[in-house]
Amino acid sequence: MNRDTARRRAFDILERDLPGDRVADVVHYFLIATILLSVSGAVLATVPSLEMRDTWWFAAGEHVALAVFSVEYLVRLWVAPEHPLRRGMSPQRARLAYVVTAPAIIDLLAIAPLFFALVHEHDFHAVMVLRLLRFLKLARYSSGFNALYLSVKRERYALLSCFLILCSGVLIAATAMYLAERTIQPQQFGSIPAAMWWAITTLTTVGYGDVVPVTTVGRIIGGITMVSGLVMLALPIAIIASSFSEVISKHHFVVTFSMISRLPPFSELEAPVLGDLLPLLNSRNFDRGHQVVRRGEAAEHLFVVLEGRLEREASTGGGVEMLGPGAVFGLLPGASGAQAVAVRAVAKSKILAIEENELHVLALRHPVVVGRLMAAATRNAGA
Amino acid sequence: MNRDTARRRAFDILERDLPGDRVADVVHYFLIATILLSVSGAVLATVPSLEMRDTWWFAAGEHVALAVFSVEYLVRLWVAPEHPLRRGMSPQRARLAYVVTAPAIIDLLAIAPLFFALVHEHDFHAVMVLRLLRFLKLARYSSGFNALYLSVKRERYALLSCFLILCSGVLIAATAMYLAERTIQPQQFGSIPAAMWWAITTLTTVGYGDVVPVTTVGRIIGGITMVSGLVMLALPIAIIASSFSEVISKHHFVVTFSMISRLPPFSELEAPVLGDLLPLLNSRNFDRGHQVVRRGEAAEHLFVVLEGRLEREASTGGGVEMLGPGAVFGLLPGASGAQAVAVRAVAKSKILAIEENELHVLALRHPVVVGRLMAAATRNAGA
Amino acid sequence: MNRDTARRRAFDILERDLPGDRVADVVHYFLIATILLSVSGAVLATVPSLEMRDTWWFAAGEHVALAVFSVEYLVRLWVAPEHPLRRGMSPQRARLAYVVTAPAIIDLLAIAPLFFALVHEHDFHAVMVLRLLRFLKLARYSSGFNALYLSVKRERYALLSCFLILCSGVLIAATAMYLAERTIQPQQFGSIPAAMWWAITTLTTVGYGDVVPVTTVGRIIGGITMVSGLVMLALPIAIIASSFSEVISKHHFVVTFSMISRLPPFSELEAPVLGDLLPLLNSRNFDRGHQVVRRGEAAEHLFVVLEGRLEREASTGGGVEMLGPGAVFGLLPGASGAQAVAVRAVAKSKILAIEENELHVLALRHPVVVGRLMAAATRNAGA
Amino acid sequence: MNRDTARRRAFDILERDLPGDRVADVVHYFLIATILLSVSGAVLATVPSLEMRDTWWFAAGEHVALAVFSVEYLVRLWVAPEHPLRRGMSPQRARLAYVVTAPAIIDLLAIAPLFFALVHEHDFHAVMVLRLLRFLKLARYSSGFNALYLSVKRERYALLSCFLILCSGVLIAATAMYLAERTIQPQQFGSIPAAMWWAITTLTTVGYGDVVPVTTVGRIIGGITMVSGLVMLALPIAIIASSFSEVISKHHFVVTFSMISRLPPFSELEAPVLGDLLPLLNSRNFDRGHQVVRRGEAAEHLFVVLEGRLEREASTGGGVEMLGPGAVFGLLPGASGAQAVAVRAVAKSKILAIEENELHVLALRHPVVVGRLMAAATRNAGA
Repeated sequence: MNRDTARRRAFDILERDLPGDRVADVVHYFLIATILLSVSGAVLATVPSLEMRDTWWFAAGEHVALAVFSVEYLVRLWVAPEHPLRRGMSPQRARLAYVVTAPAIIDLLAIAPLFFALVHEHDFHAVMVLRLLRFLKLARYSSGFNALYLSVKRERYALLSCFLILCSGVLIAATAMYLAERTIQPQQFGSIPAAMWWAITTLTTVGYGDVVPVTTVGRIIGGITMVSGLVMLALPIAIIASSFSEVISKHHFVVTFSMISRLPPFSELEAPVLGDLLPLLNSRNFDRGHQVVRRGEAAEHLFVVLEGRLEREASTGGGVEMLGPGAVFGLLPGASGAQAVAVRAVAKSKILAIEENELHVLALRHPVVVGRLMAAATRNAGA
Repeated sequence: MNRDTARRRAFDILERDLPGDRVADVVHYFLIATILLSVSGAVLATVPSLEMRDTWWFAAGEHVALAVFSVEYLVRLWVAPEHPLRRGMSPQRARLAYVVTAPAIIDLLAIAPLFFALVHEHDFHAVMVLRLLRFLKLARYSSGFNALYLSVKRERYALLSCFLILCSGVLIAATAMYLAERTIQPQQFGSIPAAMWWAITTLTTVGYGDVVPVTTVGRIIGGITMVSGLVMLALPIAIIASSFSEVISKHHFVVTFSMISRLPPFSELEAPVLGDLLPLLNSRNFDRGHQVVRRGEAAEHLFVVLEGRLEREASTGGGVEMLGPGAVFGLLPGASGAQAVAVRAVAKSKILAIEENELHVLALRHPVVVGRLMAAATRNAGA
Repeated sequence: MNRDTARRRAFDILERDLPGDRVADVVHYFLIATILLSVSGAVLATVPSLEMRDTWWFAAGEHVALAVFSVEYLVRLWVAPEHPLRRGMSPQRARLAYVVTAPAIIDLLAIAPLFFALVHEHDFHAVMVLRLLRFLKLARYSSGFNALYLSVKRERYALLSCFLILCSGVLIAATAMYLAERTIQPQQFGSIPAAMWWAITTLTTVGYGDVVPVTTVGRIIGGITMVSGLVMLALPIAIIASSFSEVISKHHFVVTFSMISRLPPFSELEAPVLGDLLPLLNSRNFDRGHQVVRRGEAAEHLFVVLEGRLEREASTGGGVEMLGPGAVFGLLPGASGAQAVAVRAVAKSKILAIEENELHVLALRHPVVVGRLMAAATRNAGA
Repeated sequence: MNRDTARRRAFDILERDLPGDRVADVVHYFLIATILLSVSGAVLATVPSLEMRDTWWFAAGEHVALAVFSVEYLVRLWVAPEHPLRRGMSPQRARLAYVVTAPAIIDLLAIAPLFFALVHEHDFHAVMVLRLLRFLKLARYSSGFNALYLSVKRERYALLSCFLILCSGVLIAATAMYLAERTIQPQQFGSIPAAMWWAITTLTTVGYGDVVPVTTVGRIIGGITMVSGLVMLALPIAIIASSFSEVISKHHFVVTFSMISRLPPFSELEAPVLGDLLPLLNSRNFDRGHQVVRRGEAAEHLFVVLEGRLEREASTGGGVEMLGPGAVFGLLPGASGAQAVAVRAVAKSKILAIEENELHVLALRHPVVVGRLMAAATRNAGA
């Protein structure tokens, strides 16, 4: 294996791009486990009663984690030119471009405490805490972080307005309460900044209860503040919620649409018909090893493979058949009762699942499509 | 009655599939009442002042409940082969397949304390508490539990991301507060795990107030945490809410569509026209005995029976007419004023109810459909 | 004026059906004011320091309110046969049918304390409190109460499921906490019912803080309960919210659709075209006396009157012109700058308001419609 | 520069209407900074320990801020006739019309304390607090404030109903708790107004915990109140949320639609086709100086300029080309790999960004449109 092949292989392992790559899975889960253990260690090290900080195994674990993350950082730096978005660049430029991306900066911060600790031996405490940044390394493995980031970014102007409205609310509530109770509770409402603490806990409906109005006027102001707080709650919920679900559903729609439009029998349809069908089609993801159809169970869906690979094991004879994109199986119109075959995903797969009721609806609207799907399913079952 | 017929009857009773089956209703409500009484007993038995645990009637009730649930479990096991999904299997396989379903496991856990108590006489307390699991038996009778389960399952990756974001939030807020107030309130913020208790109560806006920042820096960190908490609230609300309502509405849409498409005059329409109509049609459920139309009241809707059976009692003569799926009654175009008939559901029924205003809209778009509906209603009224 | 005409007039006054009826308005606001004053009195009477209960004016006010509500009840009973839904019945039957409606029962309960107080002189306190039921009389004047009632009724099965899920959550959380802290905090968590108080305050995110876990295990249980609480929050919000806005928007859509479809130039359109237009059209309500167009301001909308009556005052000459349903005025394509006329609603009116930008969109899709609207507006302006 | 030109220039600077006007930006940010500093000063001046009120620099800052706001007010008054909506009026009438607008009143209130302080020397405290009204001046710079105002206004009847429902809830909960615990906790629940404080904190889920039921009956009432509180939360969230997002999205839809419909190749399309396209098209805003395409990065979108001006810098030769509305650039079908050009906004721009996947969908539905876009992009790239 020459150097280029090795770099390609290392990139595939780290990015876990190939379905069914066992080495990539092991590396993947090993890194996640190391992050979780390292963060848990850093958290528990702050508990005085555990006295963990002086044990040999804590220090050892700490050094192992630092070594793992350092190696990971260097390997990611090495394989940076393999990324599709940086393929046209020279290796040096590609690495430089990688170093300034958000994940690379987080990775660097996750190992920075080591270098800090070597230089500033005395400030051990801040260094311990800095290791908690490693938790952010998990963002790399979560699509939700990305969707939240996109939603917040998309709606940053609306959220800024919300924040401004919240600030006005805090300011007005705090001022009113300051005027109402500054002489009765000077400790709690003696200045506007002090009253702001009460205002923010009330407007967000957290309500600690450490600072509470006691006069009638103060309680009326408090009641108005609480009711306004419901509106304050409503605004960011409305903004984030609609944006978040739009980001997720739009991504899903576009991906499913472009997959379906390339698969027979759907590829033969005109686009407007395809658009009509789409809301009736649900795609599901199956991880490697998951059973799509269990032997002996009645099939409740008609399945169309969009992506990935599956394995069908017939009960008689024991032959194993591989199913790829475009394969149709499952529910057969005539064949009631239990399935004679089992279908299992052998790689991460995306499968269209159509319920019997939906098939009925579909058949009413587009009899030709359903006819072809049924023909394909029968042909496959007979094969 | 031979054994197979008896098993079939027992299955129908337990599943309450036939509308208007009085025996099934009695068994149904008896089981629900037994669950509620048994759970209430287990809860109240933990109140020391009631001294219920030593009374003879408490022990008797406990034994009766155990007997009921044991019999129920055995009967459900016996009738398992009758389930449509397990009809092709041998009785033994069908029962084995049933035993591993979620409801069967919950049922077993609900009677397990009996066997536990027989074996481990000493650990009575844990056994008492285990009986609370019986509450989960109610899930069998609630479609909402199922919809929640499906929603959560469908969005498990998005919810996992939310959880990860929440964990990051807790970790960051706890660390910041630990650094800010660990020396001022060592009892509350002396370690990161201790500070995490404050962070989780604040981010979820519960805000007990048992741990509260007292310094200016701590309060600024607290304010930022509270505002972030609003975003934390927004994400799961958005995900669960949209998923839950989609699961419910999708189920409803598909069921209504397939029912309507089989009923004249709708069955004569082309599917796209039917799709246009659907948003204007609302189906309503009526339980047995509910009045659909009251004598003497003005009819405000045109009704089309989708499912179930109804009884129409004319004011003159006293003849009673049965209405089944496809029957049309109610609002008549010419006949203003009060109804001369009363219509009552004699079995659980699903009825399409079209308001006068909606009928107007419908008539504009599809005059033929409305014409036929009106003709059917007039014919029925004249019969 | 004979008796029937008087009854008709009394009904119109109480139901406030005729736009621009000054007597009805006075009666309407007088009744609302009496309710508010009576309820405020009942609330303030419970404050010992005010010593209101012994003052002569409090007793007088109380008697006046009772007299007003009694008269109102009797008048409503008298005019009951005038209601469109009860027009076919005999007066006696109509009154009996009215007496058992929800508003009539509330009205009766609002005056019941009087009779109670006459019979049971001693139980004065409960009687005082019963008067608070008068607040519910306000529901008659609020369409929101009705929409909430319809939403809750429509979704009663889903809400029941929510309630069941909440009960399960409370039960599980309380049991877990009971097992965890029953020996450490016997006062707070010594029995499951006691622990349920903590569980419900936590799951609803109210979080009083009077009962708080103190052990590590208890705090972990608490954290899980809080996060589950977010899901508990999400379910009813999702159900009520979607149902509530659907009830409101459906009502609005059907009302607007049927109004527009009867007005030229829209009545000449085919229904599908009308359906396309609808999302672009916003209707607004104007109360009597509100200015629709101010003299000297630039018109920003094209207005089409759907319902009600308006008065247009031209600047020159001072003639006043009445506008009814179907009239078009406002924004003119050629005439930039300020309006020379003022338009004021003389009765509660519903007016379609089309913004300049929307008019642009409309003109692209349906040039004929916009042409006719513009012609009508120009013709009106020239008149 | 004569007086009219100067007034026009002053208006443009204050309204910041011309993109890329450096003077307007400086004035804009200077005013925002002055507001923030002045409000911060007013807040911090209430903290006794800071002893700011007697320092010379605090008084100086206060006078500077007053001077700035007074000058701003006078200049805005001077330029009022330049506003498009007041163009037809005489200068005096235009200024009078301006003085009674909401922003002008807020501006006046922001400087009013000066005049107050001059007249009523003694009431210094109220004057200090009045300066906090300056924060509302920021509303002028935030579109969110306006959207919130419009949403609340649009739904004022629904929100009033919500408020009525909330009042009923508070009244019922307070009365029930008053009856249950008025003898056990006379301090907390001794009168209905006192119990209302508990009811409002519970219904809004704030839950301070300063007043808490202690009896079993009280806690059951409390539990019911909390669960009702979730419904109370749901209603305003549903109303505000849907209204707010509708106001924002409607504004966005109409603006984008009217822009796109004027640009080739979209202007050649029929309106219904355009309507189909719209959901697939996302517009993005770029501020001056923002990079749209970075040199060396792979283009991931096809961009169509809707508004504003951009600058394209080719790598070879160094010529700079200006792009205006209608220009197409970015993703090229054949050209994989990195971009050879950089594109930067030189004024605030609105750009349509079409992702590769969306382009695929678009090409399926409307091949002609995509063909023309691609041709334009290739032509531009070759230029």
